[in-house]
Amino acid sequence: MQKRKIKIVSTGKYLPKTEVTAKQLAASIGTTEDWILKKSGVEVRYFAQGETASQMGAFAAKNALEAANLSIKDIDCIISTSGVPEQALPCNAALIQQHLGAEDSGIPAFDINSTCLSFITGLDTISYLIAAGRYKQVLLVATEVASQGINWQEKESSTLFGDGAAAVIISSTQTHETAEIITSRMETYSKGAQMTECRGGGNKHHPTEYGSNPDYFLFRMDGRGIFRLTSQILPGFIERLLAPTGLKITEMQMIIPHQASLMAIRLLRSQLGVPAAKVMVIAHNHGNAIAASIPMALHEAIVQGKIKRGDKIMLLGTSAGFSVGGIVLEF
Amino acid sequence: MQKRKIKIVSTGKYLPKTEVTAKQLAASIGTTEDWILKKSGVEVRYFAQGETASQMGAFAAKNALEAANLSIKDIDCIISTSGVPEQALPCNAALIQQHLGAEDSGIPAFDINSTCLSFITGLDTISYLIAAGRYKQVLLVATEVASQGINWQEKESSTLFGDGAAAVIISSTQTHETAEIITSRMETYSKGAQMTECRGGGNKHHPTEYGSNPDYFLFRMDGRGIFRLTSQILPGFIERLLAPTGLKITEMQMIIPHQASLMAIRLLRSQLGVPAAKVMVIAHNHGNAIAASIPMALHEAIVQGKIKRGDKIMLLGTSAGFSVGGIVLEF
Repeated sequence: MQKRKIKIVSTGKYLPKTEVTAKQLAASIGTTEDWILKKSGVEVRYFAQGETASQMGAFAAKNALEAANLSIKDIDCIISTSGVPEQALPCNAALIQQHLGAEDSGIPAFDINSTCLSFITGLDTISYLIAAGRYKQVLLVATEVASQGINWQEKESSTLFGDGAAAVIISSTQTHETAEIITSRMETYSKGAQMTECRGGGNKHHPTEYGSNPDYFLFRMDGRGIFRLTSQILPGFIERLLAPTGLKITEMQMIIPHQASLMAIRLLRSQLGVPAAKVMVIAHNHGNAIAASIPMALHEAIVQGKIKRGDKIMLLGTSAGFSVGGIVLEF
Repeated sequence: MQKRKIKIVSTGKYLPKTEVTAKQLAASIGTTEDWILKKSGVEVRYFAQGETASQMGAFAAKNALEAANLSIKDIDCIISTSGVPEQALPCNAALIQQHLGAEDSGIPAFDINSTCLSFITGLDTISYLIAAGRYKQVLLVATEVASQGINWQEKESSTLFGDGAAAVIISSTQTHETAEIITSRMETYSKGAQMTECRGGGNKHHPTEYGSNPDYFLFRMDGRGIFRLTSQILPGFIERLLAPTGLKITEMQMIIPHQASLMAIRLLRSQLGVPAAKVMVIAHNHGNAIAASIPMALHEAIVQGKIKRGDKIMLLGTSAGFSVGGIVLEF
């Protein structure tokens, strides 16, 4: 167990302007609203049109800064914890810094990426640097334009995704405060690396060679394979995550899972054996926003009053890779 | 100053099979060998053909594991510190884990990216987790297929790049050893974000929309702008990096800079005021291999006997972003 006296200072969220309902989507992909609601459970999601991921991330960051009554000058490190980059280079965090008007600031900016788990990995990793005094207040930003990678020929996966951004400011805990990261854990099983992937976009399948074949540049998923792998690994992972703490899953006031789909969240709930009220759900009105899902769900849990200072919460997710990650913290 | 009792246990390197000399390149881009040697100074570089970045990274990792007489089972975290991903998702580290035959291992695997500085940022960041006992032996892998992004219409930048991979294993220092990270620092000035970039490959300019326009998916550089920005920021950065240590640049046994180009290294040397013998150069027979340049140069410095245990060395670089980063360590 690796306790760190780290506090979530504030959170922010941004959704792009174009609302897309299940009904609208049904018409455009040739199915019914009922089928979409049954398969993905996503009633409404938002698509970026003319807005970039870094712009959206900067809006979410401003929201988090305002909530904490801070300015960007109070931040001494910016981490992008997004799952997909905006450009091949430079990294997302530099582009976000630019949209925050901090282009002359020198604030170090870099990316931490473990696909859908990036926020958990980023929070986990950077907490050690704050605990050691390297940085005082860090801005984590997860921002995704998932809609760019949707394969509209794959009816099921095409109804899952939404775009969005979330930002979280963290700092060390003051002496009179009890907030802390209690424990954290990550496991990667790359036998599942090809079960969810977008093969293009990097230096393997270059657009100049494969650009005419959209198959290389769109998301694809072996839903059944991922279901099997998750069922096999997740229960043991939860045990290994909690074991050093002596805490039980029932002692968590709230579980904040990755919002892969409503079906994935139901599976998780049955594997954990926790009541619906203790699992934060935003997939129905946000869709799966890749790495932005967990911090957006955290933001919603806070603003909806579902978690309060002193609560024990668990952030938990699976990601392409295949990876599983979790953080147990006192809020 | 943030000392960490961290040791570089071993390093490894891999170059892809296709050797491309300045002479060969001159013929194909319609210039002379002399012009290339004058402009970029790169006599020979290696291009990946049919080899992927993750395969190359795994070869370098095996090389580092052998050098330390370790197996992948002795590693408890794998970080990809590459500047450009192999695929949009999943992250590079998962793909490298797979090529290391560790697909069932559960070893956590994720990416840290600050473009050309990724190795410095990765080493800097993860050293805190090792110092805190979270991980014992971490494998850092930087692997690049830079040749995929070369714009052959831009004669000057097209003669700079080479592909390659490097791996570095780090652990905490034993009580009788003196190796340590003495200090480290990073600064990002995103006013330079558009001076070196590859706009495509992510969720901003999707290949399905822009695939027919190679301009979006190839590297471009405002060489003059970068030169000005570097000249403006680097000298002060070196002062800020060294200030808390009380050390002078002349007390470093070796400077290991990013290998942007021989011209960039000459500029650096004149700004630092150090003799040529104290600056590690591999650009002439490796090219600029993005984030793999610094760890490949570190590897070469070790195997060529240019640094030995107890030496004080500085890793230093600039990257797209625009970022500057450095680590002062006792090897």
